[in-house]
Amino acid sequence: MTDHLTIKSPWPAYEWPEGKQSAALLSVDVDAHSPFLWSLRDGVPDRLAGIEIRRFGPRTGLYRLLDLFARYGFKGSFYVPGFVAETNPEILPAILEGGHEIGLHGYFHEIVAEASDAEFTGALEASMELFVKQTGQTPVGFRSPAWELTPHMLAEIKRLGLAYDSSLSGFDHPYEVDGLVELPVQWAVDDAIFFKFEGGGRDKWPLQSGRTVLDDWLREWRMLHRYGGMFTLTVHDWISGRAQRIALLEEMFDAIRAENTAWVATAREIAAFHAGSANKGRFNVPAHVPDAIGHRRFGQTHG
Amino acid sequence: MTDHLTIKSPWPAYEWPEGKQSAALLSVDVDAHSPFLWSLRDGVPDRLAGIEIRRFGPRTGLYRLLDLFARYGFKGSFYVPGFVAETNPEILPAILEGGHEIGLHGYFHEIVAEASDAEFTGALEASMELFVKQTGQTPVGFRSPAWELTPHMLAEIKRLGLAYDSSLSGFDHPYEVDGLVELPVQWAVDDAIFFKFEGGGRDKWPLQSGRTVLDDWLREWRMLHRYGGMFTLTVHDWISGRAQRIALLEEMFDAIRAENTAWVATAREIAAFHAGSANKGRFNVPAHVPDAIGHRRFGQTHG
Amino acid sequence: MTDHLTIKSPWPAYEWPEGKQSAALLSVDVDAHSPFLWSLRDGVPDRLAGIEIRRFGPRTGLYRLLDLFARYGFKGSFYVPGFVAETNPEILPAILEGGHEIGLHGYFHEIVAEASDAEFTGALEASMELFVKQTGQTPVGFRSPAWELTPHMLAEIKRLGLAYDSSLSGFDHPYEVDGLVELPVQWAVDDAIFFKFEGGGRDKWPLQSGRTVLDDWLREWRMLHRYGGMFTLTVHDWISGRAQRIALLEEMFDAIRAENTAWVATAREIAAFHAGSANKGRFNVPAHVPDAIGHRRFGQTHG
Amino acid sequence: MTDHLTIKSPWPAYEWPEGKQSAALLSVDVDAHSPFLWSLRDGVPDRLAGIEIRRFGPRTGLYRLLDLFARYGFKGSFYVPGFVAETNPEILPAILEGGHEIGLHGYFHEIVAEASDAEFTGALEASMELFVKQTGQTPVGFRSPAWELTPHMLAEIKRLGLAYDSSLSGFDHPYEVDGLVELPVQWAVDDAIFFKFEGGGRDKWPLQSGRTVLDDWLREWRMLHRYGGMFTLTVHDWISGRAQRIALLEEMFDAIRAENTAWVATAREIAAFHAGSANKGRFNVPAHVPDAIGHRRFGQTHG
Repeated sequence: MTDHLTIKSPWPAYEWPEGKQSAALLSVDVDAHSPFLWSLRDGVPDRLAGIEIRRFGPRTGLYRLLDLFARYGFKGSFYVPGFVAETNPEILPAILEGGHEIGLHGYFHEIVAEASDAEFTGALEASMELFVKQTGQTPVGFRSPAWELTPHMLAEIKRLGLAYDSSLSGFDHPYEVDGLVELPVQWAVDDAIFFKFEGGGRDKWPLQSGRTVLDDWLREWRMLHRYGGMFTLTVHDWISGRAQRIALLEEMFDAIRAENTAWVATAREIAAFHAGSANKGRFNVPAHVPDAIGHRRFGQTHG
Repeated sequence: MTDHLTIKSPWPAYEWPEGKQSAALLSVDVDAHSPFLWSLRDGVPDRLAGIEIRRFGPRTGLYRLLDLFARYGFKGSFYVPGFVAETNPEILPAILEGGHEIGLHGYFHEIVAEASDAEFTGALEASMELFVKQTGQTPVGFRSPAWELTPHMLAEIKRLGLAYDSSLSGFDHPYEVDGLVELPVQWAVDDAIFFKFEGGGRDKWPLQSGRTVLDDWLREWRMLHRYGGMFTLTVHDWISGRAQRIALLEEMFDAIRAENTAWVATAREIAAFHAGSANKGRFNVPAHVPDAIGHRRFGQTHG
Repeated sequence: MTDHLTIKSPWPAYEWPEGKQSAALLSVDVDAHSPFLWSLRDGVPDRLAGIEIRRFGPRTGLYRLLDLFARYGFKGSFYVPGFVAETNPEILPAILEGGHEIGLHGYFHEIVAEASDAEFTGALEASMELFVKQTGQTPVGFRSPAWELTPHMLAEIKRLGLAYDSSLSGFDHPYEVDGLVELPVQWAVDDAIFFKFEGGGRDKWPLQSGRTVLDDWLREWRMLHRYGGMFTLTVHDWISGRAQRIALLEEMFDAIRAENTAWVATAREIAAFHAGSANKGRFNVPAHVPDAIGHRRFGQTHG
Repeated sequence: MTDHLTIKSPWPAYEWPEGKQSAALLSVDVDAHSPFLWSLRDGVPDRLAGIEIRRFGPRTGLYRLLDLFARYGFKGSFYVPGFVAETNPEILPAILEGGHEIGLHGYFHEIVAEASDAEFTGALEASMELFVKQTGQTPVGFRSPAWELTPHMLAEIKRLGLAYDSSLSGFDHPYEVDGLVELPVQWAVDDAIFFKFEGGGRDKWPLQSGRTVLDDWLREWRMLHRYGGMFTLTVHDWISGRAQRIALLEEMFDAIRAENTAWVATAREIAAFHAGSANKGRFNVPAHVPDAIGHRRFGQTHG
């Protein structure tokens, strides 16, 4: 089936490196129990179950994922909240030893809607400082906890000289927001919305079927490859480090490896490519939050 | 299997054009971020994620859908809130260029239970005016945001001379409500209840499996074709414009194309057929909201 | 695989009629819009969508179900709220014409937790009277709206001389509660928890996959047949009368028809068999609601 | 595929008995209606449906499970709230007759977050006393209702000389918490989060697909066997004693039986092995609940 558009999109096609038709960014958000502690930041009940479920990540899950990546020879991008690195100082070195990128992900996995601008800035600077101290390297990328971004955050990411953000979903290939490279994520290829389960009455949904979720991930991958897009898979240490999830990821990685013209790369590599390519500036959108439409409603008395 | 009814329904069989056994209405609700802004109409928080997720529709998703229709040679009906056309003036011309119908869908995607009668009327008139201005053509059909309808709305749709509404589900073939042609929709063949996901805590449900949803859509199609009904598929720009959903729609469209006696038509065409056919008047029901039954309850003291 | 129990249950095996290994009760709750009106009993908003979605049942869905039963030669039990029969007087005669049983199901689909004892009694008597008037026959069975039962209801069902109730799930074969024959239901083989969808923000869950639900229904059927139980399928006019659901029911009915030793019977027939069989009295349990355990809690001060 | 870890986990590999690569703990939580009564501990409404749904367990479901275990020759661990044993005195003897382990599970299925330390202790002592009285044997293991544990509970379990707890999920092989052997559970291989359904508006989720849940259970089993872990399946009398669930468990048990190097053992046996093996002390973690992080937040005024 030819894929020519009879109706042209106002946007040009994204151009990948010579010989590549699409990109796959395999990313891991190493949250461990930081979101749990954030949600209970004013007092942690004297109970162990929720904490232990998440401690499985730094104890076991992360290493299963690192092993998986190594078996496939894939390099990924690992986003680690400062607190997780602080309390598990063996994590960043282990990730680096695997040849992966490390990116910033808040300090206490600060949920954007619940944190002030100053808190974001403080968390960003503190985690940057900690990462430099623990690894001797400066991270170049940021991914927001729970994938939210404000104009203030964007400005701060640029002020600190980071090369990219990876939190929004406005395209399915790299783009720019106010000139900052954005490497888009997508909820449909995130493990948490399907496979996060904590118990204790905290869960909104039951666990979804691994088989059908994988089927959708594979379909997204196959179609994004056809469309020349960027497939950003996001998994978590304590969720996809569980035994059955590794089996799903093996099928996923098999499919990606089978495509010779797919570029498996870290976010850092993709951001650098974008910044130096003809794509730069072609997909730059403003960090614009629209006005509320309430005052324009029809048939209302605006006295 | 013979399909003769041993117990006769009080309603006659619907009669399709010569040589046709059923109809397929392929519709697209081009909502973009209008429902998001409606839900936050009194104040939009200074955050980008939810907006960017929906901006994917006008940037990319809509064009993937238009391309899909073009590859199959199918003409569909596209319902566009006025605000989406106003802020994306390239949309209506692109849809028309594909040979599709454009219909009304509110101005700010006004949710019926949250809007007054006057607001509905104002929104309808304003979007009609805008569509004429942007396209030089007058729309003939209306689909309600979130598929709700009041007697007032019905009267206004008739007063403005529109040819049909497409918001209710009382039959699974065309019918009439107070004399207005109704082209029924059905939640079971809508993409949003299965595949809408916004993040930020707004979601009631996780994403459902593409494979099993498609399986149900195909079953509905196959059985409606057998029963001689009308299959109204409804998809959205920012939801089904995502890469993996196009693959589902290709399988759906393959199945429809394979039926020689299925009539793939726009809502405008189906409404015009209905109005000029023997079906007219046979399925006319009143726009009647039943009385509350509370006063008739048993064993109560109604003093 | 031999099915002998090495550990004996305290209850004997249920004995079916000569040559039969299990029973299948195919039941239809013809609710139409009665639960909708019940939930809005103090005021129905001036909107049409929810009503029209449910009116599909008496207009179309019921007749598709009656046709389905006729094609398979199966007789079922149809439970109809009085209000539905009152406002659709063609329904009871159509069901009887198909050779099916009609049973009581409340008058306004009164939800037990929301209705008084007197209201239950009034509704029961009024619907009985209406059914006699509309059909010339006296119903012998009752199924509670939403499958709840109180000791008062039980006593009233006995007082009116009904032969059975079908609302509880304490066994998966017929039993007795305070001497009244109980033909058990089971949520797992009800269509509403999987396929009810109303729109308008009323839905707790999205539509579930037809294929996987059918797979579970078939497994329940196959295993209940093996265990010698009773398979009570419950479907609804406006839910399973939808085109795609008929296809599921055809597969279900195919499986049932394929078992020569399965007894497909109406509830009335099964209740009559039970009352005259050796099973009578063997599975009689008290209508006993246990005491609250709060006063027995440990380490509490009960001063 | 070789499974060597290129990046070493900080934890050693778990060592199973000679010739065994993994373990399978098949456990049954015999809750019957105790969680229902706990949730209504201050007053049980005069209604029968919810109670009868759960009474199916002690009447039928438990015996189907015991029969299933017997057919496979598997010995499991059955956790029974004291109240269930008290009101169904035939249960503990039947379980013991099957050669299974009986463990403690609270008295009234006390939910940890809703019970005091003193209540936990009282419930533990009372159920221990009852079990000794009913069986002449002293239980050696505890599993918490709803899988929660506090430092107080841990200390009490040790004080009473129990050999293990089975309520946490911090590893997927045996470990120790403050020196107490912990046999980890996992929500992903529990039946309740997928198959519990009570009706009456109490349900958070619809029933999930048996086929896809089994598919995930089998994947977890296969991968845990590969990784040398411990597969703890947890089912409930009134949930998995239903006919269709037995069919799922047969497929699950077939897969386990097919692995010659899988050690199917009771929790008591696994705990005893652990305590006498080289693993002892290698996976001992503190019963540590982390401090709240609120006071460390950035950009806040902590005046």
